[in-house]
Amino acid sequence: MKNNPVEKFISIYEKERIKVDKKLSKILSRKKPASLYEPASFIIESKGKRLRPLLVILSAKAAGGKNVNLKNAAVAVELLHNFTLVHDDIMDNADKRRGKPTLHKKYDLNTAILAGDVLLAVAYEYLLKDCNGNAKQVLASFTKGLVDVCEGQSLDKEFETTDNVSINDYIRMIEKKTAAMAKMCCEIGALLGGGRKKEISALAGFGKYIGIAFQIQDDLLDIMALESEFGKVIGGDLIEGKKTFLFLKALEKSEGQDKEMLLYLLKNKGTTEDRIPNFKNLYERLGVIEDAKMEIVKYTTRALSSLKTLKKAEDRAMFRWLADSLINRTK
Amino acid sequence: MKNNPVEKFISIYEKERIKVDKKLSKILSRKKPASLYEPASFIIESKGKRLRPLLVILSAKAAGGKNVNLKNAAVAVELLHNFTLVHDDIMDNADKRRGKPTLHKKYDLNTAILAGDVLLAVAYEYLLKDCNGNAKQVLASFTKGLVDVCEGQSLDKEFETTDNVSINDYIRMIEKKTAAMAKMCCEIGALLGGGRKKEISALAGFGKYIGIAFQIQDDLLDIMALESEFGKVIGGDLIEGKKTFLFLKALEKSEGQDKEMLLYLLKNKGTTEDRIPNFKNLYERLGVIEDAKMEIVKYTTRALSSLKTLKKAEDRAMFRWLADSLINRTK
Repeated sequence: MKNNPVEKFISIYEKERIKVDKKLSKILSRKKPASLYEPASFIIESKGKRLRPLLVILSAKAAGGKNVNLKNAAVAVELLHNFTLVHDDIMDNADKRRGKPTLHKKYDLNTAILAGDVLLAVAYEYLLKDCNGNAKQVLASFTKGLVDVCEGQSLDKEFETTDNVSINDYIRMIEKKTAAMAKMCCEIGALLGGGRKKEISALAGFGKYIGIAFQIQDDLLDIMALESEFGKVIGGDLIEGKKTFLFLKALEKSEGQDKEMLLYLLKNKGTTEDRIPNFKNLYERLGVIEDAKMEIVKYTTRALSSLKTLKKAEDRAMFRWLADSLINRTK
Repeated sequence: MKNNPVEKFISIYEKERIKVDKKLSKILSRKKPASLYEPASFIIESKGKRLRPLLVILSAKAAGGKNVNLKNAAVAVELLHNFTLVHDDIMDNADKRRGKPTLHKKYDLNTAILAGDVLLAVAYEYLLKDCNGNAKQVLASFTKGLVDVCEGQSLDKEFETTDNVSINDYIRMIEKKTAAMAKMCCEIGALLGGGRKKEISALAGFGKYIGIAFQIQDDLLDIMALESEFGKVIGGDLIEGKKTFLFLKALEKSEGQDKEMLLYLLKNKGTTEDRIPNFKNLYERLGVIEDAKMEIVKYTTRALSSLKTLKKAEDRAMFRWLADSLINRTK
């Protein structure tokens, strides 16, 4: 069965995902006080794709790391990611996440702020466990990722009240908000795996570009996913009046009544759930769904090109499989 | 003039405080986007006592560190402290801080959450700059301080809805919420100063006990300070219905109508500003003001005893001056 490379990759991913889930669950369940760690567990237990730990693990392997201790670093990036989800959900006033209520809805605002904070604190606590000679470099990369995420989120919020956001502005924003974290995961994986400069920068490049592709895919799923699989409200970005890739591209390409419909959404800082099909229809008519798909392919190609210096064909194949899975994901 | 040791200490403190203020200001003013760093600057520019940087600097000196790079670590602990202030003020629904509006009042909730997050991120960024061989130890101490602060804050919020909080519970809570950070400042100072195990643990002990004394003093000032100097509303803890040392001690010592008055406050989760003088009067009658003062002296003595292994009399004298200043502070 394992002769089929895709099946082998899926099996590696599943194995690692289960290990990460188990460790995450163990870390938070034994900490006290419960008033702090139970809410933190709630978001962690709602699972997720655990893609960021996978990036750490695969990057360490590709950098030549054998039998390196990575378990703690792998859970650290997932804890950091969940910190951003908890605080972002508050700021976006989101009700649902992974099919469950968001933390501030399930508990309350204060609990969610503090649970987010402690997820970040515990992320550093665990990352440190896997750092040895290169603690300073690993921690600096992790911290850079965190700073970038905060800056990206701030730009994202800024865009809500900015009139002329360009597609370039948008790409710069997601570079910080989403791509910086994926880049960091690959970078610390490569560092912990003992990679040389060339490998570290190749893997960091992969992370950055795949992160951009991932975010555009996320924007696309917001309108194209099936609610049963998605775990969030379809069209949530439109309801919130978010300037996504799709929306900005549509604004660029539209004229007359179509443009007015988009500008009306902006003026009202969003739309209602019943109007989502009209926007979906407009996006399809303008061809921005196709534009987004092409953009995703463009950045995925860049991500994979970044890896051409990797020695082993198997490593490159594994990252290619990962990139394909991300493009074809439905949630 | 400098022959008077107190004047010499004050001059050292002033010099270091100015350096810390300058560096803090420089760090945040040159970062972008402004939507993120301007609010972060707002809380930092509202000044503060900068006691935590002083603990780092004095501990490094006492641990034998000469010409060590500490500037970045000194600002890092202040950034971390301000992160806790911003998020705590949201959770406590506080309107004023250091005589100015709190961040979520001056801006809005989302801005304050994110400004807090980035203050923490930048704290790590700067701490890392001063870490070399012992990055792992320094970062682990810093992170332990952060985890403890989150746990302490959670316990503090838990107490709001817990009926039987004992003085011991309270001390355990402030050990985490306040003392852990002071302990961490002394510990990383000692580590960066190249201290040996014995010095590191002596200084950490000082930090812990002075931190407890500091918090009880804070509780005392909440009712005994002059509003013009304090920068916050007098009796804010009573208005919020907080179970401080004074309140818990009063509950322990009171009977009859006095106890009913305290229980009535608990039932109503606080009181109104016009009732503060009645509580102040009750505290004085029950002698809990004196009890708090004695408790402060007890923990300050423990803090200073912890330093008896320090070799230089001048170092011990400096910490004694610092402890005295904290006991006698008015804000």
